[in-house]
Amino acid sequence: MRIGFVGLGAMGVPMAVNLVNAGHDVTAYDLRSAATGPVIDAGGHAATSIAEAAQEAELFWLMVVSGEQAQAVLFDAGAVDELPKGAIVIAGCTQAPAMAADTARRLKERGLKMLDAPVSGGTAGARAAALTIMCSGDAAAQAKAQPAFEAVGKRIFDVGPDAGMGSTAKMINQLLCGVHIAAAAEAMHVAERAGVSLQTMHEIISVSAGNSWMWGDRGPRMMQDEPPVTSAVDIFVKDLGIVLDQGKAMRQGLPLSAAAMQMFLAASGLGHGAADDSQVIRAYRALNGAKKP
Amino acid sequence: MRIGFVGLGAMGVPMAVNLVNAGHDVTAYDLRSAATGPVIDAGGHAATSIAEAAQEAELFWLMVVSGEQAQAVLFDAGAVDELPKGAIVIAGCTQAPAMAADTARRLKERGLKMLDAPVSGGTAGARAAALTIMCSGDAAAQAKAQPAFEAVGKRIFDVGPDAGMGSTAKMINQLLCGVHIAAAAEAMHVAERAGVSLQTMHEIISVSAGNSWMWGDRGPRMMQDEPPVTSAVDIFVKDLGIVLDQGKAMRQGLPLSAAAMQMFLAASGLGHGAADDSQVIRAYRALNGAKKP
Repeated sequence: MRIGFVGLGAMGVPMAVNLVNAGHDVTAYDLRSAATGPVIDAGGHAATSIAEAAQEAELFWLMVVSGEQAQAVLFDAGAVDELPKGAIVIAGCTQAPAMAADTARRLKERGLKMLDAPVSGGTAGARAAALTIMCSGDAAAQAKAQPAFEAVGKRIFDVGPDAGMGSTAKMINQLLCGVHIAAAAEAMHVAERAGVSLQTMHEIISVSAGNSWMWGDRGPRMMQDEPPVTSAVDIFVKDLGIVLDQGKAMRQGLPLSAAAMQMFLAASGLGHGAADDSQVIRAYRALNGAKKP
Repeated sequence: MRIGFVGLGAMGVPMAVNLVNAGHDVTAYDLRSAATGPVIDAGGHAATSIAEAAQEAELFWLMVVSGEQAQAVLFDAGAVDELPKGAIVIAGCTQAPAMAADTARRLKERGLKMLDAPVSGGTAGARAAALTIMCSGDAAAQAKAQPAFEAVGKRIFDVGPDAGMGSTAKMINQLLCGVHIAAAAEAMHVAERAGVSLQTMHEIISVSAGNSWMWGDRGPRMMQDEPPVTSAVDIFVKDLGIVLDQGKAMRQGLPLSAAAMQMFLAASGLGHGAADDSQVIRAYRALNGAKKP
């Protein structure tokens, strides 16, 4: 298939490369034109403008940072004027469900279909073509996009016909991720303040009912002073922000998400917004007194 | 070894039976004398009083419901007067760390050692002799108890020399369990209110970074109206109560534990205290309006 691909960040580059490797005709665009290098090396094409990436695209895949950026690409930079009739827009970014629904509505006015298809699995999953894709939208459009999804993902879920459902599923995953990271930090902080060995504690929980994916992944980095950044504190300020904005729009109290958000906000306010999100534990140390082991 | 064993509940019975099966000389006691049946069938003995269970015991193992009950058995029912010199008390109940430390201190005044050794793994783990044991206390006492621990548990952790550390480790596990159950309910509730299929959502999270042991175990029961009770809402009112009492004693703010506690309290207040703890989701439905799928 001819695929226009916009947004060549840490996720977008390996995804575009995997699409090329699966035999698709990929024309990629990024504001930083150097970012297209790996796609060209794999055998794909670089566009010099968004409009050029959109021309003759059967799928137009957006891996930009936000729903706002997706709308800018589509409506301000003129992609919608270039996309051929029947083209399917794939919104792969993490965004508020209401924003995804709004974009789908505006595209529909132009006769274009959208799949609300955020992904999970991080850069490792993107490189391994092992992403989880949570897709909502028209069934025929989902069927058409399926071979492209399979080129980048291992688990592809149909979350329903309505734009916003895919983003809701992703948002719910982020809700759990954010709460579990903060809960891990709360638990680690109780342990360090009580003088329990964090190594032993990590081992115990890893084989107990209190275990979580985040405990396994972030726990070891909570024991480090300056861990490598795999995902920043401010990413969860953004993602839990989406959860709570959506909760506000739906008039829905979400006590745990709200409490977790305060800890990420505090960590960011303490100057650790760009630090690894495991460092939300610093907000606990600030709150209750630092007794580091 | 000669083992006195008090407290034959859902955990205590299979543990005592496994101790008999491992070749130990077990004398068991429970307020409900009929509870000793399976222990006698396995080849153990039934005591008609706590004092009798304590006589000549090398290990005196308490699987009662709380730290208060443990103190009543030891000091009010006179076990300490019967235990021979050098006997080791094993406090296997879930209790506040301060309570465990207090009991150890009172036993020390009588020349007796205590191991603070709560367990995790539930009735299934108890039956399979696959419990996780979090033990703190004197190293020589731990070494002496090790064969008995191995008869009931698969993972035995040494959490340190001080009574209270074992209970702290268990408390930290309960903190995570309680927060993760409430977080799962919060996430499920967002899904059901947004109209996302709960089955699909459960499948997505199970292969995503938002996964937790509790999501896998409690999630399916959240989708049921009247699930079987594997652990009741009021158990987490008790266990998160221990977490927050300890936090209060240590002057330690624990925002996620506190938020989770409110949801379990609300579920209990709504009349679901004896329901399966997955039904904390009913507190969310009450809070935000029930739109059940």
